[in-house]
Amino acid sequence: MELVGYYRSSAAYRVRIALNLKGLEAQHSFRHLRRGEQRAANYLRLNPQGLVPALLLENGHSLIQSLAIIEYLDETHPNPPLLPADPVTRARVRAFALAIACEIHAVQNLKVLARLKSMGHSQEEANRWAHDTIAEGLAACEALAESGPFCFGPAPSLADLCLVPQLYNARRFGVALEAMPRLLAAEAACLALPAFAEAAPERQPDAE
Amino acid sequence: MELVGYYRSSAAYRVRIALNLKGLEAQHSFRHLRRGEQRAANYLRLNPQGLVPALLLENGHSLIQSLAIIEYLDETHPNPPLLPADPVTRARVRAFALAIACEIHAVQNLKVLARLKSMGHSQEEANRWAHDTIAEGLAACEALAESGPFCFGPAPSLADLCLVPQLYNARRFGVALEAMPRLLAAEAACLALPAFAEAAPERQPDAE
Repeated sequence: MELVGYYRSSAAYRVRIALNLKGLEAQHSFRHLRRGEQRAANYLRLNPQGLVPALLLENGHSLIQSLAIIEYLDETHPNPPLLPADPVTRARVRAFALAIACEIHAVQNLKVLARLKSMGHSQEEANRWAHDTIAEGLAACEALAESGPFCFGPAPSLADLCLVPQLYNARRFGVALEAMPRLLAAEAACLALPAFAEAAPERQPDAE
Repeated sequence: MELVGYYRSSAAYRVRIALNLKGLEAQHSFRHLRRGEQRAANYLRLNPQGLVPALLLENGHSLIQSLAIIEYLDETHPNPPLLPADPVTRARVRAFALAIACEIHAVQNLKVLARLKSMGHSQEEANRWAHDTIAEGLAACEALAESGPFCFGPAPSLADLCLVPQLYNARRFGVALEAMPRLLAAEAACLALPAFAEAAPERQPDAE
């Protein structure tokens, strides 16, 4: 397998954690998002969205969209599970993950901030947009998280895989996190695990 | 079950289709998004995100996030399936759905357009943002769709449940769809089915 990512992409970071938790080896290659390498023709053939990550499988298939990739890894390598067994709890974990992936990350990613700047907004205004989107979205996630130490109980799940990269982004944009004790406790539980710690942006070969 | 929705919410529309395809009865209640009813305290207890839909189960649980709700319905009522059996194809269907839910709908929904207007943009500028986000996102989806008549083969899937509401939105914002023949063919196959036709916004009791 080869994971095409970028050290600071939240979505690639989620998949790195999943690979580590599952104990799966993958080659890592990188597309530098700020240089636009994700829009090169040879990458658009793998991912017409022009986004990272993409997971290239041994059989020649390429998978995109981090949550779809993680569900694939969970279905094909079930241990340790990244979703609980009970359908209602699975739905709650997925909802938490989607609350981050859709309503926070997709609204504050580099592409959206670039669109704001193309409309005449300053970098400061774009940063404020990201800050406000993250702060509002994480406040809802604080209410969605359940009993600890992780977001949904005693083991890390898809929810935690989304939370940790989003908190990394939150700090980049100066979001105050004091009012989110459940999220911070889940993050601390995660970062004590090598699978999370080794997936951190600053530990990737393309980190600047 | 009770589905809390809004006739013109893409996300609620997806869940209506899923319920219809599964032959499941649900009561329908409505939160008028333009009047802000989704931010009332008694609704925020059900969904701290202040978004529709929410699915209230007989056992007292409430589920949020349309894709999580649909996966729940598919797991608890497996026929007809909304995801294929093969893990790679499941991942492709989910990726298509997420490409719409995250990178299109979440970036052009009412909440984001309201944020743009709060920054001083006109309604026309907000509409242009929605138009461009939808046009760019659907162009990627056109490349992601596979053999027809539906987005991924002979039966409707989670991908189609996301596509049809997004094309409805695309027309609202005047997006040109001629260059998307695969998406239009999948939509036509869907709208020939009562499960899709009866879920249309204009057929809901709260339609204006």
